[in-house]
Amino acid sequence: MNAKPLRSDCELCTQPGGLLVHRTEEWRVVRVADAAFPAFYRLIWNRHASEFTDLDAGARQRCMDAVAAVERALRAALQPTKVNLASLGNVVAHLHWHVIARFDWDSHFPQPVWGSAQRSVEPPAAARLPLALEALDAQVGQALASLSSARD
Amino acid sequence: MNAKPLRSDCELCTQPGGLLVHRTEEWRVVRVADAAFPAFYRLIWNRHASEFTDLDAGARQRCMDAVAAVERALRAALQPTKVNLASLGNVVAHLHWHVIARFDWDSHFPQPVWGSAQRSVEPPAAARLPLALEALDAQVGQALASLSSARD
Repeated sequence: MNAKPLRSDCELCTQPGGLLVHRTEEWRVVRVADAAFPAFYRLIWNRHASEFTDLDAGARQRCMDAVAAVERALRAALQPTKVNLASLGNVVAHLHWHVIARFDWDSHFPQPVWGSAQRSVEPPAAARLPLALEALDAQVGQALASLSSARD
Repeated sequence: MNAKPLRSDCELCTQPGGLLVHRTEEWRVVRVADAAFPAFYRLIWNRHASEFTDLDAGARQRCMDAVAAVERALRAALQPTKVNLASLGNVVAHLHWHVIARFDWDSHFPQPVWGSAQRSVEPPAAARLPLALEALDAQVGQALASLSSARD
């Protein structure tokens, strides 16, 4: 482990960073409450690391296996137009990966979620998904749990 | 390989997508000409795949090993404030990873490069880097070549 210990001044060291969906010793996956992008999950490395390459090769692989499991679960449940993956951390430099299901009808598509809105969406985005967010969380959580048990 | 063959209607199947820095059978890395973000590289999967999880586990690992090699080269050469990694593909749904060195003085920091500008930058960004872009390309290319030869 070349990640550093928890830091008291770091938001993602001290707070969950969203609604907890699944947690392992190394990482946790949360859902971010975002009305425009309801299927917005975030993998957060538990220990403080700033950059992806602060993790060693094995940890990077386990990290991306979990990101891929979230993506697969979103594709299976939602058939999104596209999945967006990003690790930015300009504001909170604690390694985290955004995994966001995008739809051609969403407020910003094809712009990134950080770009400018293209349209207003009514009824709201969550109501357009084929299942409730709690059910989606359960499917994402199950996919991540299978991943952990497959490794044991 | 579960990626699909080249598509004549796909921009990244038919065009390089930037200035070629290194190419293997599976992927290529190019530099994107962007005056605001001069250290902007892109890993493009050569065959057409839309989503990261369209690649099998081994291909995903090789893909991210190469992304990590670009990140490491940028960190070593530039000591950026942050590296941003993203695979979006909303406009061109052909798997590619952005690897962008960000600086606290750049035009958009801490916003994503797709967000709103925070300041104007004079002298231009490329002139503030500690080395010429051609030299940076050479270092990135060398890091990627070492990666390929380490695997052989």
